Amino acid sequence: MASTVPAPPPSRRDRKKNQTRDALTAAALRLAAERGVEQVTVEEIADAADVSARTFFNYFSSKDEAITGRDPQSGQRLHDRIRSAPAHLDPLDTIRLALQDELRDAEPDRKQWRLRMTVVGRSPHLLARLTTLGQAEEQALVSVIAEREGLDPRSCYPQLLAAVLGTACRVALTRWGADGEARDLSVLVDETFDLLAAGLRPAATTTGGPA
Amino acid sequence: MASTVPAPPPSRRDRKKNQTRDALTAAALRLAAERGVEQVTVEEIADAADVSARTFFNYFSSKDEAITGRDPQSGQRLHDRIRSAPAHLDPLDTIRLALQDELRDAEPDRKQWRLRMTVVGRSPHLLARLTTLGQAEEQALVSVIAEREGLDPRSCYPQLLAAVLGTACRVALTRWGADGEARDLSVLVDETFDLLAAGLRPAATTTGGPA
Repeated sequence: MASTVPAPPPSRRDRKKNQTRDALTAAALRLAAERGVEQVTVEEIADAADVSARTFFNYFSSKDEAITGRDPQSGQRLHDRIRSAPAHLDPLDTIRLALQDELRDAEPDRKQWRLRMTVVGRSPHLLARLTTLGQAEEQALVSVIAEREGLDPRSCYPQLLAAVLGTACRVALTRWGADGEARDLSVLVDETFDLLAAGLRPAATTTGGPA
Repeated sequence: MASTVPAPPPSRRDRKKNQTRDALTAAALRLAAERGVEQVTVEEIADAADVSARTFFNYFSSKDEAITGRDPQSGQRLHDRIRSAPAHLDPLDTIRLALQDELRDAEPDRKQWRLRMTVVGRSPHLLARLTTLGQAEEQALVSVIAEREGLDPRSCYPQLLAAVLGTACRVALTRWGADGEARDLSVLVDETFDLLAAGLRPAATTTGGPA
Protein backbone atom coordinates (compact mmCIF):
# COMPACT_ATOMS: atom_id res chain seq x y z
CA MET A 1 0.00 0.00 0.00
CA ALA A 2 1.10 3.61 -0.57
CA SER A 3 2.39 5.76 2.27
CA THR A 4 0.16 8.41 3.78
CA VAL A 5 2.81 11.18 3.75
CA PRO A 6 6.27 10.90 2.19
CA ALA A 7 8.75 11.71 4.96
CA PRO A 8 11.27 14.43 4.01
CA PRO A 9 14.90 13.22 4.25
CA PRO A 10 16.41 14.32 7.59
CA SER A 11 19.06 17.06 7.54
CA ARG A 12 22.64 16.28 8.62
CA ARG A 13 22.00 18.15 11.89
CA ASP A 14 18.88 16.04 12.56
CA ARG A 15 20.78 12.85 11.73
CA LYS A 16 23.51 13.79 14.23
CA LYS A 17 20.90 14.56 16.89
CA ASN A 18 19.14 11.25 16.31
CA GLN A 19 22.46 9.40 16.55
CA THR A 20 23.26 11.02 19.91
CA ARG A 21 19.75 10.29 21.16
CA ASP A 22 19.99 6.65 20.08
CA ALA A 23 23.45 6.27 21.66
CA LEU A 24 22.14 7.62 24.98
CA THR A 25 19.12 5.31 24.96
CA ALA A 26 21.29 2.31 24.04
CA ALA A 27 23.75 3.10 26.86
CA ALA A 28 20.93 3.66 29.38
CA LEU A 29 19.31 0.34 28.45
CA ARG A 30 22.54 -1.62 28.49
CA LEU A 31 23.62 -0.28 31.91
CA ALA A 32 20.13 -0.70 33.41
CA ALA A 33 19.94 -4.30 32.14
CA GLU A 34 23.39 -5.08 33.59
CA ARG A 35 23.00 -3.46 37.01
CA GLY A 36 19.34 -2.58 37.57
CA VAL A 37 17.81 0.86 36.93
CA GLU A 38 18.46 2.14 40.46
CA GLN A 39 22.20 1.45 40.21
CA VAL A 40 22.80 3.66 37.15
CA THR A 41 23.39 7.43 37.13
CA VAL A 42 22.90 10.01 34.36
CA GLU A 43 26.66 10.69 34.50
CA GLU A 44 27.43 7.04 33.77
CA ILE A 45 24.96 6.92 30.88
CA ALA A 46 26.40 10.11 29.35
CA ASP A 47 29.92 8.78 29.82
CA ALA A 48 29.09 5.48 28.11
CA ALA A 49 27.65 7.42 25.14
CA ASP A 50 30.73 9.68 25.10
CA VAL A 51 28.86 12.94 25.80
CA SER A 52 28.60 15.24 28.82
CA ALA A 53 25.80 15.07 31.39
CA ARG A 54 24.81 18.53 30.16
CA THR A 55 24.31 17.11 26.64
CA PHE A 56 22.28 14.23 28.13
CA PHE A 57 19.81 16.79 29.51
CA ASN A 58 19.39 18.34 26.05
CA TYR A 59 17.73 15.06 25.07
CA PHE A 60 16.13 13.64 28.20
CA SER A 61 14.94 15.05 31.50
CA SER A 62 15.81 11.89 33.45
CA LYS A 63 17.39 8.45 33.12
CA ASP A 64 13.89 6.92 33.12
CA GLU A 65 13.05 8.95 30.01
CA ALA A 66 16.25 7.73 28.32
CA ILE A 67 15.37 4.11 29.11
CA THR A 68 11.76 4.26 27.88
CA GLY A 69 13.28 6.05 24.85
CA ARG A 70 10.10 7.53 23.39
CA ASP A 71 10.69 9.94 20.53
CA PRO A 72 8.68 13.04 21.54
CA GLN A 73 7.98 13.78 17.84
CA SER A 74 6.49 10.33 17.20
CA GLY A 75 2.94 11.13 18.33
CA GLN A 76 2.90 14.35 16.34
CA ARG A 77 4.07 12.56 13.17
CA LEU A 78 1.36 9.92 13.62
CA HIS A 79 -1.30 12.61 14.02
CA ASP A 80 -0.06 14.53 10.96
CA ARG A 81 -0.22 11.35 8.89
CA ILE A 82 -3.77 10.60 10.01
CA ARG A 83 -4.88 14.18 9.32
CA SER A 84 -3.35 14.25 5.83
CA ALA A 85 -4.46 10.75 4.74
CA PRO A 86 -6.63 10.60 1.58
CA ALA A 87 -10.27 11.26 2.45
CA HIS A 88 -11.48 8.01 0.83
CA LEU A 89 -9.39 5.81 3.15
CA ASP A 90 -11.46 4.22 5.88
CA PRO A 91 -10.34 4.93 9.47
CA LEU A 92 -8.81 1.50 10.15
CA ASP A 93 -6.71 1.64 6.95
CA THR A 94 -5.73 5.22 7.81
CA ILE A 95 -4.31 4.32 11.20
CA ARG A 96 -2.70 1.16 9.80
CA LEU A 97 -0.80 3.15 7.17
CA ALA A 98 0.12 5.92 9.60
CA LEU A 99 1.49 3.31 12.03
CA GLN A 100 3.40 1.47 9.27
CA ASP A 101 4.99 4.76 8.12
CA GLU A 102 5.93 5.69 11.67
CA LEU A 103 7.48 2.29 12.42
CA ARG A 104 9.43 2.40 9.13
CA ASP A 105 10.85 5.84 9.97
CA ALA A 106 11.59 5.03 13.59
CA GLU A 107 13.21 1.69 12.58
CA PRO A 108 12.91 -0.03 15.94
CA ASP A 109 15.78 -2.35 16.83
CA ARG A 110 14.67 -5.85 17.79
CA LYS A 111 17.42 -6.57 20.33
CA GLN A 112 17.01 -3.15 21.92
CA TRP A 113 13.24 -3.60 22.13
CA ARG A 114 13.73 -6.95 23.92
CA LEU A 115 16.20 -5.34 26.31
CA ARG A 116 13.72 -2.54 27.09
CA MET A 117 10.92 -5.03 27.82
CA THR A 118 13.25 -6.90 30.20
CA VAL A 119 14.29 -3.72 32.02
CA VAL A 120 10.72 -2.38 32.23
CA GLY A 121 9.39 -5.76 33.39
CA ARG A 122 11.73 -5.59 36.41
CA SER A 123 10.85 -2.03 37.35
CA PRO A 124 7.28 -1.14 38.47
CA HIS A 125 7.90 2.61 38.23
CA LEU A 126 9.01 2.30 34.58
CA LEU A 127 6.00 0.13 33.82
CA ALA A 128 3.74 2.75 35.39
CA ARG A 129 5.50 5.45 33.37
CA LEU A 130 4.96 3.58 30.09
CA THR A 131 1.33 2.87 30.99
CA THR A 132 0.70 6.55 31.73
CA LEU A 133 2.43 7.58 28.49
CA GLY A 134 0.30 5.08 26.58
CA GLN A 135 -2.89 6.47 28.15
CA ALA A 136 -1.94 10.05 27.18
CA GLU A 137 -1.08 8.97 23.62
CA GLU A 138 -4.40 7.16 23.35
CA GLN A 139 -6.35 10.22 24.50
CA ALA A 140 -4.55 12.46 21.98
CA LEU A 141 -5.32 9.94 19.24
CA VAL A 142 -9.03 9.86 20.18
CA SER A 143 -9.21 13.60 19.43
CA VAL A 144 -7.42 13.26 16.08
CA ILE A 145 -9.66 10.38 14.93
CA ALA A 146 -12.86 12.07 16.13
CA GLU A 147 -11.91 15.27 14.29
CA ARG A 148 -11.14 13.43 11.03
CA GLU A 149 -14.38 11.44 11.18
CA GLY A 150 -16.55 14.31 12.39
CA LEU A 151 -17.51 12.39 15.53
CA ASP A 152 -17.93 13.36 19.17
CA PRO A 153 -14.66 12.38 20.95
CA ARG A 154 -16.82 10.99 23.76
CA SER A 155 -18.48 8.51 21.39
CA CYS A 156 -17.46 4.86 21.27
CA TYR A 157 -15.91 4.67 17.81
CA PRO A 158 -12.90 7.03 18.18
CA GLN A 159 -12.24 5.77 21.71
CA LEU A 160 -12.26 2.13 20.64
CA LEU A 161 -10.23 2.74 17.46
CA ALA A 162 -7.50 4.65 19.35
CA ALA A 163 -7.34 1.93 22.04
CA VAL A 164 -7.23 -0.84 19.43
CA LEU A 165 -4.37 0.89 17.58
CA GLY A 166 -2.29 0.72 20.78
CA THR A 167 -3.28 -2.92 21.32
CA ALA A 168 -2.53 -3.97 17.74
CA CYS A 169 0.84 -2.20 17.91
CA ARG A 170 1.70 -3.91 21.21
CA VAL A 171 0.69 -7.38 19.94
CA ALA A 172 2.72 -6.94 16.74
CA LEU A 173 5.78 -5.63 18.64
CA THR A 174 5.58 -8.45 21.19
CA ARG A 175 5.39 -11.06 18.43
CA TRP A 176 8.26 -9.35 16.59
CA GLY A 177 10.39 -9.31 19.74
CA ALA A 178 9.63 -12.96 20.60
CA ASP A 179 12.37 -15.49 20.13
CA GLY A 180 12.05 -17.38 16.91
CA GLU A 181 9.92 -14.72 15.18
CA ALA A 182 11.89 -13.84 12.07
CA ARG A 183 9.30 -11.89 10.07
CA ASP A 184 9.49 -8.13 9.56
CA LEU A 185 7.55 -5.92 11.91
CA SER A 186 5.52 -4.50 9.00
CA VAL A 187 4.31 -8.02 8.10
CA LEU A 188 3.22 -8.64 11.70
CA VAL A 189 1.45 -5.27 11.85
CA ASP A 190 -0.45 -6.12 8.65
CA GLU A 191 -1.38 -9.51 10.09
CA THR A 192 -3.05 -7.89 13.13
CA PHE A 193 -4.86 -5.25 11.04
CA ASP A 194 -6.08 -7.87 8.52
CA LEU A 195 -7.70 -9.74 11.42
CA LEU A 196 -9.26 -6.55 12.79
CA ALA A 197 -10.63 -5.60 9.36
CA ALA A 198 -12.13 -9.10 9.06
CA GLY A 199 -14.09 -8.56 12.28
CA LEU A 200 -11.75 -10.87 14.22
CA ARG A 201 -13.06 -13.94 12.45
CA PRO A 202 -10.79 -16.97 12.81
CA ALA A 203 -11.10 -17.92 9.11
CA ALA A 204 -8.91 -14.93 8.30
CA THR A 205 -5.95 -16.50 10.07
CA THR A 206 -3.87 -19.70 10.04
CA THR A 207 -1.69 -21.24 12.70
CA GLY A 208 1.39 -20.31 10.70
CA GLY A 209 1.84 -17.11 8.73
CA PRO A 210 -0.32 -14.14 7.81
CA ALA A 211 -3.61 -14.52 5.93
CA MET B 1 -28.35 -13.34 23.63
CA ALA B 2 -28.29 -16.36 25.90
CA SER B 3 -25.71 -16.83 28.61
CA THR B 4 -22.80 -19.19 28.08
CA VAL B 5 -23.10 -20.95 31.46
CA PRO B 6 -25.93 -20.40 33.95
CA ALA B 7 -24.25 -19.35 37.21
CA PRO B 8 -25.30 -21.50 40.20
CA PRO B 9 -26.82 -19.37 43.00
CA PRO B 10 -24.15 -18.66 45.66
CA SER B 11 -24.49 -20.39 49.03
CA ARG B 12 -25.15 -18.34 52.17
CA ARG B 13 -21.53 -18.86 53.22
CA ASP B 14 -20.28 -17.57 49.85
CA ARG B 15 -22.61 -14.57 50.07
CA LYS B 16 -21.24 -13.70 53.52
CA LYS B 17 -17.67 -14.03 52.26
CA ASN B 18 -18.41 -11.80 49.28
CA GLN B 19 -19.99 -9.20 51.58
CA THR B 20 -16.91 -9.10 53.82
CA ARG B 21 -14.63 -8.91 50.78
CA ASP B 22 -16.68 -6.04 49.30
CA ALA B 23 -16.74 -4.18 52.63
CA LEU B 24 -12.95 -4.43 52.91
CA THR B 25 -12.41 -3.17 49.36
CA ALA B 26 -14.89 -0.32 49.87
CA ALA B 27 -13.16 0.73 53.10
CA ALA B 28 -9.69 0.48 51.53
CA LEU B 29 -10.77 2.61 48.56
CA ARG B 30 -12.52 5.23 50.67
CA LEU B 31 -9.59 5.64 53.07
CA ALA B 32 -7.02 5.68 50.23
CA ALA B 33 -9.04 8.32 48.33
CA GLU B 34 -9.34 10.46 51.48
CA ARG B 35 -5.73 10.28 52.69
CA GLY B 36 -3.56 8.77 49.96
CA VAL B 37 -2.60 5.09 49.77
CA GLU B 38 0.60 5.51 51.81
CA GLN B 39 -1.28 7.01 54.76
CA VAL B 40 -3.59 4.01 55.29
CA THR B 41 -2.81 0.83 57.24
CA VAL B 42 -4.35 -2.65 57.06
CA GLU B 43 -5.52 -2.21 60.67
CA GLU B 44 -7.47 0.92 59.75
CA ILE B 45 -9.07 -0.75 56.73
CA ALA B 46 -10.10 -3.79 58.80
CA ASP B 47 -11.43 -1.49 61.53
CA ALA B 48 -13.51 0.53 59.04
CA ALA B 49 -15.01 -2.74 57.73
CA ASP B 50 -15.64 -3.92 61.30
CA VAL B 51 -13.41 -7.01 61.11
CA SER B 52 -10.01 -7.93 62.59
CA ALA B 53 -6.71 -7.50 60.74
CA ARG B 54 -6.48 -11.30 60.86
CA THR B 55 -9.75 -11.57 58.93
CA PHE B 56 -8.42 -8.99 56.43
CA PHE B 57 -5.55 -11.35 55.61
CA ASN B 58 -8.00 -14.18 54.90
CA TYR B 59 -9.12 -12.12 51.89
CA PHE B 60 -6.11 -10.06 50.80
CA SER B 61 -2.34 -10.34 51.21
CA SER B 62 -1.85 -6.53 51.28
CA LYS B 63 -3.71 -3.23 51.27
CA ASP B 64 -2.76 -2.79 47.59
CA GLU B 65 -4.61 -6.02 46.80
CA ALA B 66 -7.68 -4.76 48.68
CA ILE B 67 -7.62 -1.49 46.74
CA THR B 68 -7.27 -3.05 43.30
CA GLY B 69 -10.05 -5.39 44.46
CA ARG B 70 -9.69 -8.11 41.86
CA ASP B 71 -11.75 -11.19 42.53
CA PRO B 72 -9.25 -14.08 42.22
CA GLN B 73 -12.05 -16.35 40.91
CA SER B 74 -12.97 -13.97 38.09
CA GLY B 75 -10.36 -15.17 35.59
CA GLN B 76 -11.24 -18.82 36.26
CA ARG B 77 -14.96 -18.17 35.73
CA LEU B 78 -14.22 -16.39 32.44
CA HIS B 79 -12.10 -19.31 31.27
CA ASP B 80 -14.76 -21.86 32.28
CA ARG B 81 -17.37 -19.91 30.33
CA ILE B 82 -15.20 -19.78 27.23
CA ARG B 83 -14.40 -23.50 27.45
CA SER B 84 -18.06 -24.51 27.86
CA ALA B 85 -19.53 -22.16 25.24
CA PRO B 86 -21.51 -23.83 22.41
CA ALA B 87 -19.14 -25.05 19.71
CA HIS B 88 -20.99 -23.16 16.93
CA LEU B 89 -20.33 -19.73 18.55
CA ASP B 90 -17.55 -17.82 16.86
CA PRO B 91 -14.62 -16.77 19.10
CA LEU B 92 -15.54 -13.07 19.29
CA ASP B 93 -19.14 -13.88 20.31
CA THR B 94 -17.83 -16.43 22.79
CA ILE B 95 -15.61 -13.92 24.62
CA ARG B 96 -18.34 -11.26 24.42
CA LEU B 97 -20.85 -13.53 26.15
CA ALA B 98 -18.33 -14.77 28.70
CA LEU B 99 -17.44 -11.16 29.55
CA GLN B 100 -21.10 -10.10 29.78
CA ASP B 101 -21.85 -13.02 32.11
CA GLU B 102 -18.85 -12.20 34.28
CA LEU B 103 -19.72 -8.50 34.53
CA ARG B 104 -23.34 -9.36 35.38
CA ASP B 105 -22.22 -11.69 38.19
CA ALA B 106 -19.56 -9.36 39.54
CA GLU B 107 -21.98 -6.39 39.37
CA PRO B 108 -19.39 -3.63 39.37
CA ASP B 109 -20.37 -0.48 41.24
CA ARG B 110 -20.03 2.70 39.16
CA LYS B 111 -19.04 5.05 42.00
CA GLN B 112 -16.56 2.55 43.39
CA TRP B 113 -15.02 2.02 39.96
CA ARG B 114 -14.53 5.79 39.58
CA LEU B 115 -12.98 5.96 43.04
CA ARG B 116 -10.57 3.15 42.15
CA MET B 117 -9.49 4.87 38.93
CA THR B 118 -8.82 8.08 40.90
CA VAL B 119 -6.76 6.26 43.55
CA VAL B 120 -4.81 4.22 40.98
CA GLY B 121 -4.20 7.31 38.81
CA ARG B 122 -2.40 8.96 41.76
CA SER B 123 -0.28 5.94 42.60
CA PRO B 124 2.36 4.64 40.12
CA HIS B 125 2.90 1.40 42.06
CA LEU B 126 -0.83 0.56 41.92
CA LEU B 127 -0.90 1.38 38.21
CA ALA B 128 2.08 -0.93 37.67
CA ARG B 129 0.33 -3.63 39.72
CA LEU B 130 -2.84 -3.41 37.63
CA THR B 131 -0.82 -3.40 34.40
CA THR B 132 1.07 -6.53 35.48
CA LEU B 133 -2.18 -8.23 36.52
CA GLY B 134 -3.69 -7.35 33.14
CA GLN B 135 -0.70 -8.84 31.31
CA ALA B 136 -0.95 -12.10 33.29
CA GLU B 137 -4.71 -12.31 32.65
CA GLU B 138 -4.14 -11.72 28.95
CA GLN B 139 -1.54 -14.50 28.75
CA ALA B 140 -3.86 -16.95 30.52
CA LEU B 141 -6.66 -16.01 28.11
CA VAL B 142 -4.40 -16.57 25.08
CA SER B 143 -3.97 -20.21 26.18
CA VAL B 144 -7.72 -20.74 26.70
CA ILE B 145 -8.63 -19.24 23.30
CA ALA B 146 -5.87 -21.13 21.48
CA GLU B 147 -7.00 -24.41 23.05
CA ARG B 148 -10.67 -23.88 22.13
CA GLU B 149 -9.79 -22.92 18.54
CA GLY B 150 -7.10 -25.56 18.09
CA LEU B 151 -4.48 -22.92 17.34
CA ASP B 152 -0.86 -22.46 18.34
CA PRO B 153 -0.84 -20.03 21.32
CA ARG B 154 2.10 -18.28 19.64
CA SER B 155 0.00 -17.47 16.56
CA CYS B 156 -1.48 -14.03 16.00
CA TYR B 157 -5.18 -14.81 16.37
CA PRO B 158 -5.40 -15.92 20.02
CA GLN B 159 -2.89 -13.25 21.07
CA LEU B 160 -4.82 -10.47 19.35
CA LEU B 161 -8.24 -11.70 20.51
CA ALA B 162 -7.13 -11.89 24.16
CA ALA B 163 -5.55 -8.43 23.98
CA VAL B 164 -8.64 -6.97 22.28
CA LEU B 165 -10.92 -8.44 24.97
CA GLY B 166 -8.97 -6.49 27.60
CA THR B 167 -9.08 -3.35 25.47
CA ALA B 168 -12.81 -3.60 24.74
CA CYS B 169 -13.50 -4.19 28.44
CA ARG B 170 -11.40 -1.17 29.44
CA VAL B 171 -13.06 1.11 26.85
CA ALA B 172 -16.55 0.03 27.92
CA LEU B 173 -15.73 0.44 31.64
CA THR B 174 -14.17 3.87 31.08
CA ARG B 175 -17.23 5.04 29.13
CA TRP B 176 -19.50 3.59 31.81
CA GLY B 177 -17.55 5.36 34.57
CA ALA B 178 -17.48 8.69 32.70
CA ASP B 179 -19.65 11.49 34.00
CA GLY B 180 -22.87 11.81 32.08
CA GLU B 181 -22.83 8.20 30.80
CA ALA B 182 -26.11 6.77 32.03
CA ARG B 183 -26.32 3.57 29.98
CA ASP B 184 -25.86 0.12 31.47
CA LEU B 185 -22.42 -1.46 31.27
CA SER B 186 -23.80 -4.38 29.23
CA VAL B 187 -25.06 -1.95 26.55
CA LEU B 188 -21.65 -0.30 26.34
CA VAL B 189 -19.91 -3.69 26.12
CA ASP B 190 -22.21 -4.69 23.26
CA GLU B 191 -21.48 -1.40 21.51
CA THR B 192 -17.73 -2.10 21.50
CA PHE B 193 -18.15 -5.72 20.37
CA ASP B 194 -20.59 -4.72 17.60
CA LEU B 195 -17.92 -2.38 16.23
CA LEU B 196 -15.24 -5.08 16.48
CA ALA B 197 -17.47 -7.62 14.72
CA ALA B 198 -18.08 -5.05 11.95
CA GLY B 199 -14.33 -4.80 11.31
CA LEU B 200 -14.17 -1.38 13.00
CA ARG B 201 -16.03 0.29 10.15
CA PRO B 202 -17.44 3.71 11.09
CA ALA B 203 -20.82 3.00 9.43
CA ALA B 204 -21.55 0.66 12.31
CA THR B 205 -21.61 3.57 14.75
CA THR B 206 -23.28 6.95 15.24
CA THR B 207 -22.24 10.00 17.27
CA GLY B 208 -24.97 9.24 19.81
CA GLY B 209 -26.02 5.80 20.97
CA PRO B 210 -25.20 2.23 20.02
CA ALA B 211 -25.71 0.94 16.48
